[in-house]
Amino acid sequence: MSGLREMFEAREGEQRLDDDPATMPPDGGVIFIGSIASPWTTRESCPKNMRAARETGQPALLTIDPPYRDGLRGLERASHIVILSWLHHAPRNLIVQKPRHAAEAKGVFGLRSPARPNPVGLHVAKLVGLDIGTGRIELDAIDVLDGTPVIDIKPYYASTDAWPEATIEGRDEPGRTGP
Amino acid sequence: MSGLREMFEAREGEQRLDDDPATMPPDGGVIFIGSIASPWTTRESCPKNMRAARETGQPALLTIDPPYRDGLRGLERASHIVILSWLHHAPRNLIVQKPRHAAEAKGVFGLRSPARPNPVGLHVAKLVGLDIGTGRIELDAIDVLDGTPVIDIKPYYASTDAWPEATIEGRDEPGRTGP
Repeated sequence: MSGLREMFEAREGEQRLDDDPATMPPDGGVIFIGSIASPWTTRESCPKNMRAARETGQPALLTIDPPYRDGLRGLERASHIVILSWLHHAPRNLIVQKPRHAAEAKGVFGLRSPARPNPVGLHVAKLVGLDIGTGRIELDAIDVLDGTPVIDIKPYYASTDAWPEATIEGRDEPGRTGP
Repeated sequence: MSGLREMFEAREGEQRLDDDPATMPPDGGVIFIGSIASPWTTRESCPKNMRAARETGQPALLTIDPPYRDGLRGLERASHIVILSWLHHAPRNLIVQKPRHAAEAKGVFGLRSPARPNPVGLHVAKLVGLDIGTGRIELDAIDVLDGTPVIDIKPYYASTDAWPEATIEGRDEPGRTGP
């Protein structure tokens, strides 16, 4: 994984924060509750989003650490779950970024880039299996590097989380793939 | 806000972690990038989820702090956004909880309770207005207390985030309300 941070090379139009959130005094602390085992060990091979991850046909395994396993009781009722990951390899000071192949630089909050002031990744996955005793959660797919820490799991509620009519102006949305 | 933590009174069947994540050495640090102004100043009046918040008809205002405002460039193209909040008033050591009116205790990761090891709230809101110069983001609704810190904003992508067919076994889902 060494050199990964350097791979976020400078691109035209990018802006960096004067104070790097990675080295500022934090306002709050996160603890890792588990980690993700994925087939992806390099940034090049890692799918860029959950749709691309699903299209590979590769499942993923999330393991929750022993102290937190009782917290999984009842999660088995959910067909889909939200995973919040901690994308600890990404730089945190790129406030305006130019995605590869993008025409112009964009603000980080208009992107799903892993490089953000607080490197929290949001992933909605299908819950394929759950074993509370071993803390193993089987997912249909994941779009993060092997070994990525996890900071939260939530049940996905269609009533508040599903907005199929949501749009991004000017973005080509070739239609959602099935579950 | 004093006394709020005490309001998470002990209930039958609850379990607490031996080590409180609030006082453990953190694995990572978050910085606050802004905060939410909401009509809700007490836990009793605060809607329990985004649907209930929307039903009140009350909008909300999120303000991003000056260093991070350039990060909003391009977000205006999104019809809906994901807000990650830091629910700093909630206890972090309740691993099994008994929600009021619930028949039995449940693991925290099977619930959307604000009391969780990492107190990150996930909210999908309609983007009503955005002014990058002042960092003001107008939302259709919000389900957090006035003054809640924000740690991330992401564009909502229907292609990866919308799963209207997602279910929670045994949960009464009276149908999603409109946007």
